Amino acid sequence: MKKIAVLGYGTVGSGVVELMEINAKTIAENAAEPIEVKYILDIRDFSNDKNADKFVKDFAVIENDPEICVVVETIGGTNPAYDFTKRALLSGKNVVTSNKELVATHGAELLSIAREKNLNYLFEASVGGGIPIIRPIAQCLAANKIDEIYGILNGTTNYILTRMIKAGLTFEKALSEAQELGYAERDPSADIEGHDACRKICILASLAFGRHIYPKYIKTEGITKVTLDDVRLAGKAGCVIRLLGRTKLSDDGKVFAYVGPHLVPKDSPIASVEDVFNGIMVHGNMIGNAMFYGPGAGKYPTASAVSADIIDAVKHIRARKYLDWDDAGEEIVADMSGFESKYYVRILGENARSIAAQIFEDIEFIEDDEAVAFITARIMEKDFEEKLDAASQKCNILSHMRVL
Amino acid sequence: MKKIAVLGYGTVGSGVVELMEINAKTIAENAAEPIEVKYILDIRDFSNDKNADKFVKDFAVIENDPEICVVVETIGGTNPAYDFTKRALLSGKNVVTSNKELVATHGAELLSIAREKNLNYLFEASVGGGIPIIRPIAQCLAANKIDEIYGILNGTTNYILTRMIKAGLTFEKALSEAQELGYAERDPSADIEGHDACRKICILASLAFGRHIYPKYIKTEGITKVTLDDVRLAGKAGCVIRLLGRTKLSDDGKVFAYVGPHLVPKDSPIASVEDVFNGIMVHGNMIGNAMFYGPGAGKYPTASAVSADIIDAVKHIRARKYLDWDDAGEEIVADMSGFESKYYVRILGENARSIAAQIFEDIEFIEDDEAVAFITARIMEKDFEEKLDAASQKCNILSHMRVL
Repeated sequence: MKKIAVLGYGTVGSGVVELMEINAKTIAENAAEPIEVKYILDIRDFSNDKNADKFVKDFAVIENDPEICVVVETIGGTNPAYDFTKRALLSGKNVVTSNKELVATHGAELLSIAREKNLNYLFEASVGGGIPIIRPIAQCLAANKIDEIYGILNGTTNYILTRMIKAGLTFEKALSEAQELGYAERDPSADIEGHDACRKICILASLAFGRHIYPKYIKTEGITKVTLDDVRLAGKAGCVIRLLGRTKLSDDGKVFAYVGPHLVPKDSPIASVEDVFNGIMVHGNMIGNAMFYGPGAGKYPTASAVSADIIDAVKHIRARKYLDWDDAGEEIVADMSGFESKYYVRILGENARSIAAQIFEDIEFIEDDEAVAFITARIMEKDFEEKLDAASQKCNILSHMRVL
Repeated sequence: MKKIAVLGYGTVGSGVVELMEINAKTIAENAAEPIEVKYILDIRDFSNDKNADKFVKDFAVIENDPEICVVVETIGGTNPAYDFTKRALLSGKNVVTSNKELVATHGAELLSIAREKNLNYLFEASVGGGIPIIRPIAQCLAANKIDEIYGILNGTTNYILTRMIKAGLTFEKALSEAQELGYAERDPSADIEGHDACRKICILASLAFGRHIYPKYIKTEGITKVTLDDVRLAGKAGCVIRLLGRTKLSDDGKVFAYVGPHLVPKDSPIASVEDVFNGIMVHGNMIGNAMFYGPGAGKYPTASAVSADIIDAVKHIRARKYLDWDDAGEEIVADMSGFESKYYVRILGENARSIAAQIFEDIEFIEDDEAVAFITARIMEKDFEEKLDAASQKCNILSHMRVL
């Protein structure tokens, strides 16, 4: 029997506690012994909860209990999660988390403490919700040099885009529908501005390339500017619009990473990832492309990933897992001006067409009765921005985004 | 430095040897020490190969060398792979394999030897080529009760079906194109008759449900009867035809498993798996659906999966991995007569429509100028077969398959 503590009794934390009970038999078999939740830490009052006797408010109780071998941090945010995680590791306990913000901002430090103490700091649930992605990258693709990862990392924005595409809803209407269904928060900015996807692509980049990529160095754009004109024209070009996080090794060994809306060709497997689902494509020098698809959020899917880490931590109490990376600064982040892509640009007015054709060579127009846009050839971001700037002096540029 | 032996220098074996050299640095980092191929066993002459000095013809050399900690079996088939695998395990060596036939027919026995000797018998490459699937099911979904798995498990047949759908080629033409491109063997029967997919679904079922499901108990149908009429009508019904291996827990705890062509709705992520790619959907009680997509075959993708297992075996020389299942017989295989599905049935002639409507209640017709078919409601296989038999007394049944 192994004993664990769960920090935070919100959606994910309560999901983990429930899952450990519902699937107790499966878990005991797979962990080779039963696992019991001994403590639940939450500052709120749960005296009527059926697990009321397990609640504690003081982290020191958990920290000082030698019976606790795994601390499950599902508080979210950095405060007090950062402090508790550090103290748990320093007191010799393995830590499992779903907290993408914490991993993205303090991962390198926490991993280095785990390394020194010969403990595991596991975070499968921090990216892609229930989807197995962290362990497959670290273990199953361990014989590959990974050179690129991109994917739909945020279910809320993918739901909004899917509703814009399939039901013709405006961004605002799709957002309020998502809020009514509980897919979007009342303050949706972390999702729709791309910050959530940014944290996740930073974690994937850090894992794949072995050096911490901090969110603050990453260009991040959300989907608030995407219109139904864009959705329609993308469709005419055989594409759907998706918000992608993307990271790629540059030729000089630096790491490109960014978040932004993209036109994705319909025959790409990523295009078929709809609603609140996530899909992550990983490219390795030996395997080529592999995609991981599933529920990117939700109580039980996320609890499923957290619990797999708990089982793994219990089975490897004295053996460290593959997950690790070193700290690094801005110097390893490649300047996006050297990133090559095709671009989609929506313009206004008949004279805009000839101006665009003059400034951008080799473009293809897409249009319908209401709107017109063009797609460029592959071009460096630096050159694209110069040309876009020149064009915008002479005509109206309504929107632009990358083409995958 | 850990030393390994590779058995068989065909496509996969030579791919592994190459990969271990090309990605030596990445592998040494991930395995925490370098890995060297000390022996290659092949009965053929490779005296001009650059690795000529590593070749041996006598397995006893490997078996008796205490330096060898991992034996990589890429011979394929059961003879002599079965004997070599057993001897390797009995002499205290971990075994890694890409051999689906061996795992599907002798997996339970080989796993039990590995268990007794506290060794690992790993076979990530046996299903889905390079796609991480075995480890994700065993580890990442370890907190789930898995209740269903289905997928495109054979790249050759998926290529043929894709070409029939996209280029309008007949089965015969698509098959010969696949043969010209090297995607299909000169004797393609193991692929097109579904035997390859059958072995793979048996491995997945055994892993997910913990008891060995033998290929001989599994209903297996290939794609040789699929026509362009079926492809077109499926398209009209919003579906594509895919060869699926599928396994599902029955209500009484037995295991349904079969292989056959299906109509797959276009909005299913499995429908977007085209050409030689594979895609495997796993359903667990907590995660819901997760899909794994990637190259299902090929020299380097398969070598990528084999090499990940080699790294894992090296890192866990004295710790057994999650992979395991018990032996079992026909008694745990559920009779397909109790399996529920919708069906597609193509019929001939105007009177066939009214006969079909009389015998099958609640059907929907699909038709174009050249052909007509119908799709049934969900129905037990037993009832479907009775009704089909009754209908075939009175009209022409041209083809039928399940609808996912």
